[in-house]
Formats: sequence, structure tokens, C-alpha cells
Amino acid sequence: MDKNRLSLEMILSMERNHRRNFINDLSSFKSANLIGTVNFDGITNLAVFNSVVHIGANPPLMGFILRPTVVARQTYDNIKATGYFTINPITEKLRDRAHQTSAKYPEGISEFIMTGIKPEFSKSHPAPYVAESPFKIGLKIEEEQLIKANGCRLIIGRIIEVLIDDKLITPDGHIDLKKSKVLTISGLDTYSVVGKGQQLEYARPDC
Amino acid sequence: MDKNRLSLEMILSMERNHRRNFINDLSSFKSANLIGTVNFDGITNLAVFNSVVHIGANPPLMGFILRPTVVARQTYDNIKATGYFTINPITEKLRDRAHQTSAKYPEGISEFIMTGIKPEFSKSHPAPYVAESPFKIGLKIEEEQLIKANGCRLIIGRIIEVLIDDKLITPDGHIDLKKSKVLTISGLDTYSVVGKGQQLEYARPDC
Repeated sequence: MDKNRLSLEMILSMERNHRRNFINDLSSFKSANLIGTVNFDGITNLAVFNSVVHIGANPPLMGFILRPTVVARQTYDNIKATGYFTINPITEKLRDRAHQTSAKYPEGISEFIMTGIKPEFSKSHPAPYVAESPFKIGLKIEEEQLIKANGCRLIIGRIIEVLIDDKLITPDGHIDLKKSKVLTISGLDTYSVVGKGQQLEYARPDC
Repeated sequence: MDKNRLSLEMILSMERNHRRNFINDLSSFKSANLIGTVNFDGITNLAVFNSVVHIGANPPLMGFILRPTVVARQTYDNIKATGYFTINPITEKLRDRAHQTSAKYPEGISEFIMTGIKPEFSKSHPAPYVAESPFKIGLKIEEEQLIKANGCRLIIGRIIEVLIDDKLITPDGHIDLKKSKVLTISGLDTYSVVGKGQQLEYARPDC
């Protein structure tokens, strides 16, 4: 295949939306999650994130990238205020309502109400879960790292509980993501179903 | 669906491999990439990473999570030594050889040689690309953040060039990931093809 070279200068000279689409697609397929939080007045918030990553298994930690807080970032404010958040995978059935949470609703109105996504609460912490996500993770803020290059933050939470149907867990601890019907996101707004998967064996040198 | 609650205590008491599988699957489908680096002696290194994330479009930044450096981390050492790395998406055709790079080869032997993946070089920097990746990104180290909770690092690079066939770029700047045949990883070792995708429109309040 004939490869062409796009230099940094050529990338920086792209039209703004064109560049945003291009750069966001370079990271290929990403996790599709709704992050749930609540403020001190009990107003819940729900937002799509495509940047949830695994940080560690022991202690169990997950993180996500939060854009600069120059505009209102209710997710960040709520996590700072209450200390908790939830991660809820997006399924095909949830897709359209999940994406609709990215609309700019007036302050003080919950995305749960505006999109019709049903919240679910646990006795362990105040942050709302998405009732119909096939599994859901409750986290306590552990650490945040400010990225100097552009003002984004890596937010890291310690897992305090997981709500999941036992039937989705295989005997060796894996979650049946195919049965869970979890989607993947590419770019900012393209949601895809995932097809056939192949688990490969632990790689050993064959020399 | 009946949800069961797994508390932190229950998660911590899981058998080690069971917990690792479970926690790694909680982040669902992740990006599948090979990161290429080189040391001062010209020995190239190639390693699978499932944690590449988008950091920003302007300046164009991408990042990935690197495990603690208590054991040899050639990727990290090479980036620190030379300042550059490449990100190369994994396709179905590359899958088995890409996974094989995770085998513990003796020091001083390149994964490119051991797995038969062909490197490709650019005049702009010394880090090796994967020749047959449908597109490939050259980055200069910009910043690193040490995660206090478990000693992992977020490594952030500034994109300095992208090698890509023009035919993979749509008129609005998107990369045709379907045509590129890029896979997604779940857990540590399951590679899946991605099926039908749906791009959703910019969400606006409909109230």
C-alpha cells in the first residue's frame, strides 16, 4: 500500500474539524462508557467517555482522560465534591440515549431525566449507576494528574464494587463482553459492534 | 438481569489470575497497537499495548499507560534514551505475530527479527514503524506522569508525522478504520474484529 507522509505542519494546517476527526481516529477503537456522578444537591450527571483505561489489577484501578476544565465539567466537579463516580459500558440498546447525554442541557437538569436512562443506586456510595448496563463499576477518586501539554487530566479511581450478573463471568474470571453486547467507539461519535474474538495463548519465545 | 455485588474485599480475595482477567475486562474493548522504539545501539523493540488513548487534537497528542519499571521495560528505556516512539495499529493479518512480541526474548534481540514483522523507517526520527500497519504515527516524548497509586506511568507523545494512504482518509478527515481492518483488544490477550459502525450526529437538547 502506498504510504503518504503527513508532517506535523500539514496536520496543524488542516481545517479544525477535519483535524479533530483525523487525530481522534488515530487511536482506533476505544472503550464506550457512561460515567455517572452526582453533586451535593443530589442532581445526577451522566456523560459519554471514550478514554476509560485499565490502570492496575491490584489494587484495582481504572482511569479516564478528562478534557480541560475551562468550560463547565460537571463530571469533574462532582467527583471532586463527592469523591465517587461510576463506569457503565454502553450497549447497542443504550447507544442513542447514551450519545444524547453529550447534548448541552441547562445546568441543574440531569441527563438521566433528559435521556430517559434509568439510574440505579448502591448503599456503598452516592454516585448513580446506569441500571441497564450489563455490568457497572463503582469507584472512589484515588488520584488525578494534570497533563501540562494541554490541560487535560487523567482521573484515576479505585474500584470499590462491581455490580454484575454472575452468568457473565467465565470460570477463569473473564467477563463475556460479547454476551454483554458492549460497543466500541472510534473517533468521537462512531459506535460499533464487536465481532468474532480470538483469545491468544501466553506468548513464549520459540527460539 | 439479576445483578450481584462484588465488593472490593471479594475482588481482592479472588485468585490472582482470576482477578487479573476480571479487572482487565472491566475496561471492555481497547485499542490494539504495537509501539516501536530503538535503543542507542540501534536495537529495535516492538511491544503490544492496549492502552493507547487520545489526549488532544491541537497540539496533536496521544498517550499510553506503561506498567511499573521494576522489571526491564525496554519501551520506556528506549523512549527516554532517544525521545521517539511509533504507534502502529494491529490488523487481523498482523495479530499472531503482534501478540508474539510479548514473549520474553533475551535482551539484545529485536522483536522485529524474532516475529518476522518488517520494520520501516522515516527520515524524521530513529524509531521503527511496522511496515504493514495500515497507518502509523511517529511521536516525540512530550511528558510523563508517574501514577502514585501503583507506579504505572502515563507516557504522552506529540505527533510529529503520520504515514497513511490518502485513500483511507474520508473527505471530512476520518480514517476508514473498517477498511484498515484494525482490531480491538479486550482483557490482555483477546483480539476481536469490529463490525458495523454507526456515526451519530452532534447531540443537541431536544427540550
